[in-house]
Amino acid sequence: MSVIYQKVALIGLGLIAGSMAHAMRRDGLAGEIVGTARSAETRAVARDIGLCDRVVDSASEAVEGADLVVLAVPVGAMGRVAGEIAPHLAPGATVTDVGSVKKDVVDQVGHHLPEGVHFIPGHPLAGTEHSGPRSGFAELFENRYTLLTPVEGSDPEAVARLRALWEGMGANVEEMDAEHHDLVLAVTSHTPHLIAYTMVGVADHLRRVTESEVIKYSAAGFRDFTRIAASDPTMWRDVFLTNKEAVLDILGRFTEELFVLQRAIRMGDGDALHDYFTRTRAIRRGIIEAGQDTDAPDFGRVKPRKGGDAG
Amino acid sequence: MSVIYQKVALIGLGLIAGSMAHAMRRDGLAGEIVGTARSAETRAVARDIGLCDRVVDSASEAVEGADLVVLAVPVGAMGRVAGEIAPHLAPGATVTDVGSVKKDVVDQVGHHLPEGVHFIPGHPLAGTEHSGPRSGFAELFENRYTLLTPVEGSDPEAVARLRALWEGMGANVEEMDAEHHDLVLAVTSHTPHLIAYTMVGVADHLRRVTESEVIKYSAAGFRDFTRIAASDPTMWRDVFLTNKEAVLDILGRFTEELFVLQRAIRMGDGDALHDYFTRTRAIRRGIIEAGQDTDAPDFGRVKPRKGGDAG
Repeated sequence: MSVIYQKVALIGLGLIAGSMAHAMRRDGLAGEIVGTARSAETRAVARDIGLCDRVVDSASEAVEGADLVVLAVPVGAMGRVAGEIAPHLAPGATVTDVGSVKKDVVDQVGHHLPEGVHFIPGHPLAGTEHSGPRSGFAELFENRYTLLTPVEGSDPEAVARLRALWEGMGANVEEMDAEHHDLVLAVTSHTPHLIAYTMVGVADHLRRVTESEVIKYSAAGFRDFTRIAASDPTMWRDVFLTNKEAVLDILGRFTEELFVLQRAIRMGDGDALHDYFTRTRAIRRGIIEAGQDTDAPDFGRVKPRKGGDAG
Repeated sequence: MSVIYQKVALIGLGLIAGSMAHAMRRDGLAGEIVGTARSAETRAVARDIGLCDRVVDSASEAVEGADLVVLAVPVGAMGRVAGEIAPHLAPGATVTDVGSVKKDVVDQVGHHLPEGVHFIPGHPLAGTEHSGPRSGFAELFENRYTLLTPVEGSDPEAVARLRALWEGMGANVEEMDAEHHDLVLAVTSHTPHLIAYTMVGVADHLRRVTESEVIKYSAAGFRDFTRIAASDPTMWRDVFLTNKEAVLDILGRFTEELFVLQRAIRMGDGDALHDYFTRTRAIRRGIIEAGQDTDAPDFGRVKPRKGGDAG
């Protein structure tokens, strides 16, 4: 592949930015990759493992002369970072982000950016339960979706260039408006995460079932909840604070629906339960057909051995 | 390994019984394996793939002369099957089951069985989202727990023999009483499944987010819910009807807890959210240390290709 941006500045060096660095290098998509992070420890680790071509100590230094700036910090920090880098951005540069919420980021970041800088918010739908500068890997975005939510007046050429970068890293790219993005994500990601956190919290509080029992017998279903409930707490706090309306909307629907099933259990209405459980199977089939999960039993998990050795 | 039972009768030929057949054969744990299922189609498939040494047309025929009888039918059908086989059981035979609920099975089955037959309820905590006679595989029970809930007066030698069979198939075996089993499973399995079904149902009902969007963008979290919501509807209907009290108890706690988090979102209480999300991480670490999941990013999923090819 050929170079798409001459200098890419990564602000924040967690799972997403780290994976972008690995992917851009593998495919030669960036002339130079400069990174920074607020924590000195993160910067030291990034230098140590050679994550970027250069790791610098401040965001304003990182963005100098960059034709692409990627804001890869928690959603709650986007506005502050945008204000900090704004005076240092090169004319014609593109600023994008990788936050899980889009409307709030547009509101926080947009007004800071000078004329002549292209602002194209983005969100790669990819992740693992790991975080930090060591957690990235080049394949993270392969066959995953990246959603771009161009703002009014976004330059089509700048959008096309950013799309080419994401496609170069293996992603499928789609465009939608920021508000619709936030609703779609409330359904497919934010509310499921909140529910998983809640269920894990309930298990943690119980006195009659010990924690060691919960852990030993987790393969019966609970395990799938703990993976998503192990994600980065700061990132998720910011998601819920900034996508409040859509999450509360979906949570309301979820609770209504749960009460209907709860009532069916209480009344012993087996037919209602069976009908409900039959309908939900169809969605699973759709996901496998769309290539967004594997049909291998148990997700194709590698059988872990006792003692945590995943071999 | 050596033969533990001379003749094993499998009543029901789904994922669990099929996996037992594969595992017992691989390790030579059974002299003869005879199976049956209520559906003629299931019996035909089982014969076709040679799942058992013999497939017969009725449960009463299957149990004749068997020293181990495994009831592997949905929990709601256990009593009926027990009544049907009772007159045909060999003296000294052990009857066990693999149902996900234990107290209700004890109540349904116990009174049917004649003197001199050992009744030892059991529950292998293993499964995938697949069902039917083709879904079994010999490794299903490896490093998974099987819980035995012996009833009052269970013969210790008969219990030890059944334990040896499960250990021979690779399982870790633990004993507990039926009531405690049902509470532990309400937390680790039944309530998580109900919640996953509910979330998938909510997504299915929404009009503003299309089904194709839910499917395309599922990797962001929702996907993990759909696997467990794709499990066998009849099995799960029976679980909720027969473990009603414990499930309603845990559901009540879950709803309380969810409302606390919902309120924190509404009030913008970021500290409360952050604290909560930090605590839940510890449980995840425990599960990995206990060898009940892999630490590989994204569960070690094989990256599916477009078109659903999991290669």
